[in-house]
Amino acid sequence: MRAAPLVEAGTFEPETRERPTPGPSEVLVEVSDVGICGSDVHWYEHGRMGDRAVEEPLVLGHESAGTVVEVGAAVDDHAVGDAVTIEPGVPCGECEHCRRGAYNLCPAVEFMATPGTDGAFREYVAWPAEYVYGLPASVSAREGALCEPISVGVHAVRRAGVGMGDSVLVMGAGPIGLLAADVARAAGAADVAVVDVVDSKLDRALNRGADLAIDSRETDVAAAVRDEFGAGVDAAIEATGAPPAIEAVLDAPGPDGTAVLVGLAPDAEVPVDTFELVRRQVDVRGSYRFANTYPTAISLIASGDVDAAGIVDFELSLDRIGDAFGRAAEPDVVKGMISMG
Amino acid sequence: MRAAPLVEAGTFEPETRERPTPGPSEVLVEVSDVGICGSDVHWYEHGRMGDRAVEEPLVLGHESAGTVVEVGAAVDDHAVGDAVTIEPGVPCGECEHCRRGAYNLCPAVEFMATPGTDGAFREYVAWPAEYVYGLPASVSAREGALCEPISVGVHAVRRAGVGMGDSVLVMGAGPIGLLAADVARAAGAADVAVVDVVDSKLDRALNRGADLAIDSRETDVAAAVRDEFGAGVDAAIEATGAPPAIEAVLDAPGPDGTAVLVGLAPDAEVPVDTFELVRRQVDVRGSYRFANTYPTAISLIASGDVDAAGIVDFELSLDRIGDAFGRAAEPDVVKGMISMG
Amino acid sequence: MRAAPLVEAGTFEPETRERPTPGPSEVLVEVSDVGICGSDVHWYEHGRMGDRAVEEPLVLGHESAGTVVEVGAAVDDHAVGDAVTIEPGVPCGECEHCRRGAYNLCPAVEFMATPGTDGAFREYVAWPAEYVYGLPASVSAREGALCEPISVGVHAVRRAGVGMGDSVLVMGAGPIGLLAADVARAAGAADVAVVDVVDSKLDRALNRGADLAIDSRETDVAAAVRDEFGAGVDAAIEATGAPPAIEAVLDAPGPDGTAVLVGLAPDAEVPVDTFELVRRQVDVRGSYRFANTYPTAISLIASGDVDAAGIVDFELSLDRIGDAFGRAAEPDVVKGMISMG
Amino acid sequence: MRAAPLVEAGTFEPETRERPTPGPSEVLVEVSDVGICGSDVHWYEHGRMGDRAVEEPLVLGHESAGTVVEVGAAVDDHAVGDAVTIEPGVPCGECEHCRRGAYNLCPAVEFMATPGTDGAFREYVAWPAEYVYGLPASVSAREGALCEPISVGVHAVRRAGVGMGDSVLVMGAGPIGLLAADVARAAGAADVAVVDVVDSKLDRALNRGADLAIDSRETDVAAAVRDEFGAGVDAAIEATGAPPAIEAVLDAPGPDGTAVLVGLAPDAEVPVDTFELVRRQVDVRGSYRFANTYPTAISLIASGDVDAAGIVDFELSLDRIGDAFGRAAEPDVVKGMISMG
Repeated sequence: MRAAPLVEAGTFEPETRERPTPGPSEVLVEVSDVGICGSDVHWYEHGRMGDRAVEEPLVLGHESAGTVVEVGAAVDDHAVGDAVTIEPGVPCGECEHCRRGAYNLCPAVEFMATPGTDGAFREYVAWPAEYVYGLPASVSAREGALCEPISVGVHAVRRAGVGMGDSVLVMGAGPIGLLAADVARAAGAADVAVVDVVDSKLDRALNRGADLAIDSRETDVAAAVRDEFGAGVDAAIEATGAPPAIEAVLDAPGPDGTAVLVGLAPDAEVPVDTFELVRRQVDVRGSYRFANTYPTAISLIASGDVDAAGIVDFELSLDRIGDAFGRAAEPDVVKGMISMG
Repeated sequence: MRAAPLVEAGTFEPETRERPTPGPSEVLVEVSDVGICGSDVHWYEHGRMGDRAVEEPLVLGHESAGTVVEVGAAVDDHAVGDAVTIEPGVPCGECEHCRRGAYNLCPAVEFMATPGTDGAFREYVAWPAEYVYGLPASVSAREGALCEPISVGVHAVRRAGVGMGDSVLVMGAGPIGLLAADVARAAGAADVAVVDVVDSKLDRALNRGADLAIDSRETDVAAAVRDEFGAGVDAAIEATGAPPAIEAVLDAPGPDGTAVLVGLAPDAEVPVDTFELVRRQVDVRGSYRFANTYPTAISLIASGDVDAAGIVDFELSLDRIGDAFGRAAEPDVVKGMISMG
Repeated sequence: MRAAPLVEAGTFEPETRERPTPGPSEVLVEVSDVGICGSDVHWYEHGRMGDRAVEEPLVLGHESAGTVVEVGAAVDDHAVGDAVTIEPGVPCGECEHCRRGAYNLCPAVEFMATPGTDGAFREYVAWPAEYVYGLPASVSAREGALCEPISVGVHAVRRAGVGMGDSVLVMGAGPIGLLAADVARAAGAADVAVVDVVDSKLDRALNRGADLAIDSRETDVAAAVRDEFGAGVDAAIEATGAPPAIEAVLDAPGPDGTAVLVGLAPDAEVPVDTFELVRRQVDVRGSYRFANTYPTAISLIASGDVDAAGIVDFELSLDRIGDAFGRAAEPDVVKGMISMG
Repeated sequence: MRAAPLVEAGTFEPETRERPTPGPSEVLVEVSDVGICGSDVHWYEHGRMGDRAVEEPLVLGHESAGTVVEVGAAVDDHAVGDAVTIEPGVPCGECEHCRRGAYNLCPAVEFMATPGTDGAFREYVAWPAEYVYGLPASVSAREGALCEPISVGVHAVRRAGVGMGDSVLVMGAGPIGLLAADVARAAGAADVAVVDVVDSKLDRALNRGADLAIDSRETDVAAAVRDEFGAGVDAAIEATGAPPAIEAVLDAPGPDGTAVLVGLAPDAEVPVDTFELVRRQVDVRGSYRFANTYPTAISLIASGDVDAAGIVDFELSLDRIGDAFGRAAEPDVVKGMISMG
């Protein structure tokens, strides 16, 4: 099979590998569509993430979907030919975090596209059947692959406790921000405001149904929030990782409101006015990856509540992965994808 | 009656006033014991708090207990002679925050010892009967007065979600910290560590049953927490308001842990490593005053779970209020009180 | 003004009364539309409800909307001419239930159309401004009046904990059932099944978007649920009060699922298989009236998530109130209304 | 090794078996103490439980503790010589219930002393290391074995949401009831009432610190609750499985209170007044076995909050297992145990 591992910063080296053989509890998936995540781009550009570096060739890509072509002997809930999406992290199932349902915090998780676990920019993936989900006919493989970033949004919206009638501010109109805005609406939000610094992304947020788009280059976010929502929003979701955006998002919630941090700001310290957090009794909640989200993500696509396909700007074939990563890094691109077919 | 209003920074001017007459839904309480809170000391020293200043003489004191000496016509759950404690904030009961149970966030609350609402350093207080609570025979007036700081601790422990078997770190061995440590234990905490910078306070924490006392002058709190609790504590409660302590407390919780901020740090910005909050999926929750805590506070004193009297260092009579405030500001004093009798 | 009190079972006696004068915290509302609730019909037919009887003439009707025509001196958030809906219960604001946000359980609540508190089948109502809510231009008075049964649905759906992707069973396609089904969808439910015994109501449920309509005359509900939802639904809402329906609803939830009881079954004992409740670890939750729902109800109408107008079968003028009550009692009628105009 | 399987109703046939060999993720435990549960007695007396029968010899006993004598190659958190307790159910770790933290509802759980999985009335047990927990020096093996029924209590108390200052009613002064009463106190309950029909058990409840013991042969439980707790208790826990007790427990909670059902009443229908559940807005919650409780149970014994040893009436050696089961079935016995030594 073909695979396109990253061998060092800036260099994919496509190659031919042996097709993997699924274990007894695994299925073999012929991959058709894979999204390019911001973290993939980070690995591509820097060859490292925090203190982990690409020492062996590493196949990137953890937003994937395809078709089952082989099933292990112990698998009874998937059949050859099933359209499926792959949840990219497989937790241990036994540690204290797994046992209490927070498997996103499992320290032994094997997560695609991190050193030691190849991702999905390859033709075939063998994966534990329990972390592979059938797609209904109404959900395309392209959409199915995007269950991963939708899951990030579902987890963030759950962490935010968004309920019927709530007002929600989303920082960032990238893939997580746009999808989280849809998810928040599906969870009952009555008003959704989206903040960004790129005109085309702000337009996109409005076209997808945001009630308000705030250009933080020109507008003070806190002032805009007070104008529109009085004492503040019920929930604010930070999906950029930019320190000024994090600082702004903490000021958005009203009394007893919540700010959920999704975007990662490594090596940065954000100055926080904790007096206001106490006085308004705000919750600031980290939200890491996701757990127990895939069935919900599929259901949100199927119902039309989340427009997954609409965030995609382009899809290139695997042999153009370098071009694809170049385009994915452009500021007005929301989501690029790779087609295996 | 005698009263001792603050007339400007540093000056109480004891005087004689007319005894108040209770309204139909009020009771008249003959005050016997009143605690001196850090915020009282702040008003005394600066004559202001944030953007609010003492323009009219202001009676301080919001931790009070005494005896009912008169009841309004519409009051049927209090009788003359009842030993009672007074909840110092009376919310509007009708705004959105009141209606959903978060009356501590009521913007129209009348709170003792803030401009416009006299506090309890006076012989008699007329107060809405619904915010006055009977004390059982086993609870003294001195203890009853301390239901106020205990309430701050109860609210913080509830916000922290402390449950059976949890590990808890408390920053600060002042009145809120020591009482919150007791409350956390009553809520089921298995291990309680207390941090301070004053030897006598650390000793006091240990003598009251803390499992660990950390002197943050000598010991790195984060390192001590990892040594003792592995990945971090289940809940951390910040009760100092000092920016370095706030910074340290955010680093104490383990994955899915919680840090509750009680101490106020006006005009300060605390540098926060939000990357770690996301990666460990930590909740940071402001905790403002209290709501629905007085019956619980009384019950915790009565059961012996909270040692209220044990935090008191001295009690002086009203005519020595100046001396009392002087002593209350000393670093090793936890709680001073004024006796009206 | 005209009013149509019930004087004894089966008899309204329309009369002319003095127009009420609003107190300082009240507004005077000229009522335009009032829904007829099943409880109104019960009072009309029996002249009593449980142990409370109509001893003085009692104006029924507690689902009302209209226009502000006068505002009390202390009211600053309503103006003459505002279109409004009236929340029919005014709690005390001070008891333990009010203070913790559960004002629906206030024992001192004054609720329209119960002995001692006249309802809305009259031209003018003076009511505390805090329990009167402005309607946006996109919400009609007819719809605004139905914020009351929508509120019952909102409270039930919140009690059920309905979230994104959930499956929900609703027992009964009357006004509460149909509206609760809409509300459940707005809260994120992916699949909604509705059960009834009247063909036209089942059709109506399907036409309003239910995924499944179950005719319990012909189909065993439990079997239908297992067929469609495997181990059971995430949440089931009982909106009939009929003992067999209550029995069936308790069997619908899957493991860790929830059954919410809204319908009242006075003087009935329902046989319950508690073994199954334990083994599947089901929650059975009573849901009484509502609290903190009106802004949400208005928002759900405005967004189109709840089709309030679509449940109305007819609207007659006040002078035909007897006819209206006759029709409202017919089995295929969902909602009748009275127009004051 | 010696083992004492049940071969048919009423007959244990002690035998010698091969000592099991632990797998790579398992430890081998030399069992020292095993509690006799009511379900063991049921199996012994009837040879069956519901629709499951003893067809092959079945070793009973699922409340066990002992010493590690061998560790599998992949085990790094246990060492030979460790004193340990064994959690008797090993869930699959992958199904939807396991993944969201409710592993007590795993349909594929292997639970000791159910057909297919031998229990602990034998000298050695090989068990997955993740479900074996070290005991501190302050906890005896006898106490460690009782982490199992304590876990049932911990789960029930969590399901009940018991918090500081709550009033709690416990139906039944058997092992679950007595231990749950201790656990409720540890979770902050201020008042605990215990109901039973055996004098010695009521005395025992009082001697262990219950605030009130109600003899339901002589006293109407509901009336006693209203006398003592006004509108009802905050939480009631049913630990008998007797239909009249279940009926009574549902009447105990006050408005917004909770009744938790632990006791199993197979093949019984309990008549329930659902009108009252709605009007008082009560939660009735099934509580099945336990999940994520063992570390908490150990901590509760170590702190002295739960008096585990105090529920034990007798401990006999394995060769007297028949006698032990006979005595365990007597009405005034709370807990019998088997010593392997």
